[in-house]
Amino acid sequence: MPSAARKSQERDRASMEPPPADDYAKERYGVLPLIQSQEKSDRVLVRINDLTVEKADQVVWVRGRIHTSRAKGKQCFLVLRQQQFNVQALVAVGDHASKQMVKFAANVNKESIVDVEGIVRKVHQKIGGCTQQDVELHVQRIYVISLAEPRLPLQLDDAVRAEVEGEEEGRATVNQDTRLDNRVIDLRTCTSQAVFHLQSGICQLFRETLLHKGFVEIQTPKIISAASEGGANVFTVSYFKSSAYLAQSPQLYKQMCICADFEKVFCIGPVFRAEDSNTHRHLTEFVGLDIEMAFNYHYHEVVDEIADTLVQIFKGLQERFQTEILTVNKQFPCEPFKFLEPTLSLEYREALAMLREAGVEMGDEDDLSTPNEKLLGRLVKEKYDTDFYILDKYPLAVRPFYTMPDPGNPKNSNSYDMFMRGEEILSGAQRIHDPELLTERAQHHGIDLEKIKAYIDSFRFGAPPHAGGGIGLERVTMLYLGLSNVRQTSMFPRDPKRLTP
Amino acid sequence: MPSAARKSQERDRASMEPPPADDYAKERYGVLPLIQSQEKSDRVLVRINDLTVEKADQVVWVRGRIHTSRAKGKQCFLVLRQQQFNVQALVAVGDHASKQMVKFAANVNKESIVDVEGIVRKVHQKIGGCTQQDVELHVQRIYVISLAEPRLPLQLDDAVRAEVEGEEEGRATVNQDTRLDNRVIDLRTCTSQAVFHLQSGICQLFRETLLHKGFVEIQTPKIISAASEGGANVFTVSYFKSSAYLAQSPQLYKQMCICADFEKVFCIGPVFRAEDSNTHRHLTEFVGLDIEMAFNYHYHEVVDEIADTLVQIFKGLQERFQTEILTVNKQFPCEPFKFLEPTLSLEYREALAMLREAGVEMGDEDDLSTPNEKLLGRLVKEKYDTDFYILDKYPLAVRPFYTMPDPGNPKNSNSYDMFMRGEEILSGAQRIHDPELLTERAQHHGIDLEKIKAYIDSFRFGAPPHAGGGIGLERVTMLYLGLSNVRQTSMFPRDPKRLTP
Repeated sequence: MPSAARKSQERDRASMEPPPADDYAKERYGVLPLIQSQEKSDRVLVRINDLTVEKADQVVWVRGRIHTSRAKGKQCFLVLRQQQFNVQALVAVGDHASKQMVKFAANVNKESIVDVEGIVRKVHQKIGGCTQQDVELHVQRIYVISLAEPRLPLQLDDAVRAEVEGEEEGRATVNQDTRLDNRVIDLRTCTSQAVFHLQSGICQLFRETLLHKGFVEIQTPKIISAASEGGANVFTVSYFKSSAYLAQSPQLYKQMCICADFEKVFCIGPVFRAEDSNTHRHLTEFVGLDIEMAFNYHYHEVVDEIADTLVQIFKGLQERFQTEILTVNKQFPCEPFKFLEPTLSLEYREALAMLREAGVEMGDEDDLSTPNEKLLGRLVKEKYDTDFYILDKYPLAVRPFYTMPDPGNPKNSNSYDMFMRGEEILSGAQRIHDPELLTERAQHHGIDLEKIKAYIDSFRFGAPPHAGGGIGLERVTMLYLGLSNVRQTSMFPRDPKRLTP
Repeated sequence: MPSAARKSQERDRASMEPPPADDYAKERYGVLPLIQSQEKSDRVLVRINDLTVEKADQVVWVRGRIHTSRAKGKQCFLVLRQQQFNVQALVAVGDHASKQMVKFAANVNKESIVDVEGIVRKVHQKIGGCTQQDVELHVQRIYVISLAEPRLPLQLDDAVRAEVEGEEEGRATVNQDTRLDNRVIDLRTCTSQAVFHLQSGICQLFRETLLHKGFVEIQTPKIISAASEGGANVFTVSYFKSSAYLAQSPQLYKQMCICADFEKVFCIGPVFRAEDSNTHRHLTEFVGLDIEMAFNYHYHEVVDEIADTLVQIFKGLQERFQTEILTVNKQFPCEPFKFLEPTLSLEYREALAMLREAGVEMGDEDDLSTPNEKLLGRLVKEKYDTDFYILDKYPLAVRPFYTMPDPGNPKNSNSYDMFMRGEEILSGAQRIHDPELLTERAQHHGIDLEKIKAYIDSFRFGAPPHAGGGIGLERVTMLYLGLSNVRQTSMFPRDPKRLTP
């Protein structure tokens, strides 16, 4: 064994009493050498989730973390944890365990990983604090696989405590920066496990639905030669002897794929925004779920596909991730997410009328402020009982240069946003597929034509009418679960002030 | 209609003869106004792929590109294309079409998009140049939806010509830079369509297999605060008033997810390498298919899962993408991809012995050069008849600092590469999960410990043994299809000299 590994294990052992030579149980516990793949093993490790009464009286091996331990005379009660599941384990002086072994078990630091051999025993009174309530493990052997340091930067029990409960009972909760600074531990809580298992599900449902609809997955470059959308809020990269930029969206590339006849494309990837926004819903790097699609005659063909994709995601989450939703709700209570089929679609002018009726003063061509977005969400919820809706026909003035103007009203555009619980999660539009009109609109926006030449040129050799949109993954996760900060739904969030871990 | 759109359509019309007032067919052809979603339509557009004898004598609408056109007296033969499929269409003077209409059809620039109404007619002699060989369309109406410019930067027929054929027959082929400079057109060829539909399939099969195995998809940040793997070959980003880097791999983050108990994780995302390598297989930005997994006792548990995932991909491609494989083979002939079940695994020392037997001089701790990699591929193919194999137990000296040393031989390591057709597509290893040993190895490699503190600290609170690997998507696509340059399998490749389109 390399010297550091040996030293490390020695230090670990030193911190715990080594088994004395005259201990009759001395072979039955201890700190194992670092697993370097010394040998293969046929030993079957049973999942904690599978420890049920069907396994009563069987001897099993389990690998788990020490979630809590409590010594009490000649006994030590451990709670062993594996992801969202845990089970009680009892080490008691007897044939298998000596006094020293019980002491050893009691002294293993919380969050250490142990291999435990034990008999599954049915219990007569349900074990309240554990997910496996009907059985406990009677420990016969316990070996430390990886020892945690004694002082944890945060306690998992504090990290899953609901804020209300913390306030009412004067018990500790963990603030966001402490969580994020120690993300590896914070991600171990049942709440975090549930959030990110569900997020993996959102990606899966998004792709499943689109592949089923005949879409093709594409990969678009993130390093680009020119700031694609006007040059504001873009990160600069030094690129050998020159410089380049980080893509603010896959917009231009997914459109090029449409011009290249892929017809219906999607991609999932990072999106970069150099905005100095320190809000609950802005990140400098987030994950975009992007869609682009050629249509026949009307961009609503695309809007319907996108809305249906989101509906399929909502339904899939309800069906497949009920456990995760309930786990998160326990710490962060919220109303179940409501949606209609078909999806409610309002025109921007209708939304303006609703807001004005509620006393808001807004011009016809003003964009929605965040407070007005939220107010509108409440008004729509009251009137239509849905947490998900489309706002169609935005004023042309507040949309990017490549947005197709409304043929019926030159001040409007064929563009739309989609909202969950009153916050925007998708922005999209019919794009201009004619190079002359695109040039005119870019000039109107003061964009340097030289910089977007390749983009405009993509439309010179026949381009089908098309539309699309981009969804923010972290926002969808946050709003579906009724959470309040997008940092809760980004594993390693990036904002103007945070680049670590 | 906005003035530019009007102007553009006027110019288009001007470039083609406008229908004269006394033309009896004048309503049956022309350039339509820009589709701005003026109205919805119930018209059903039939897919070209669906034009078969079952539809004989039916009147259908089709939207396609003008692939070729050939006027001949009172007739004009068009080939209409849709992705990989095409059909012959005939415009002939008669009840539906006037002389002027035939002339109009003949004058529409290649690659323009048209809506055509026609009767499906069975033909008596198979149409050789088309995928729909048994029918043709007798055109009754033809309208231009999007007019292409008259001069194409490359001809699609040249772009799909096999090089041998070009050389032997003295016919044009298209060189790589012309292709990449005009990627939107190059991607329209049946070969490109097949390559990227298959690539989408690789991603789909990768995820399907891993989700089925119980893996969780994660999203890892691309902007990082410290150069993760020693600082060489990393792109710098200006980050507000400070600077940051682009991740060279998701390595550290997927390991943190393992320390956070996600157990089995994967991700698909961009990977950045600031290497000034101008080879057939290096890109500065590529797509990584990454895997990381906690194991019980031996890292081969992970190697087996990764190899099986690749085997499932190979099988899935064979089953679901046979058409695409044949299409690519037509332009780029190659032997079918061969693999064994279970996957062949050789130790590094065995490979050395094979190479030495073939006359190569190499030290025990030397890394494989590219020519030796390829030679080894040929030797393995001869001996074992497989294009896919694992090379296990690399010398420790040639692997990254976080690689677990081999417990049986301190000069070796628990690390592996996987190869397709003699080129590396995956590099992986058991990682060191002990903070002391990790520190020792980082120091040995001269890495600034301060910069990787967060990484090392992730292992201080209990870490399971784990291993993983990263696969290059473009390389897998290239080598599976027997292509010769990774730029053929990246939609918009990035290398030291190319940042556009």
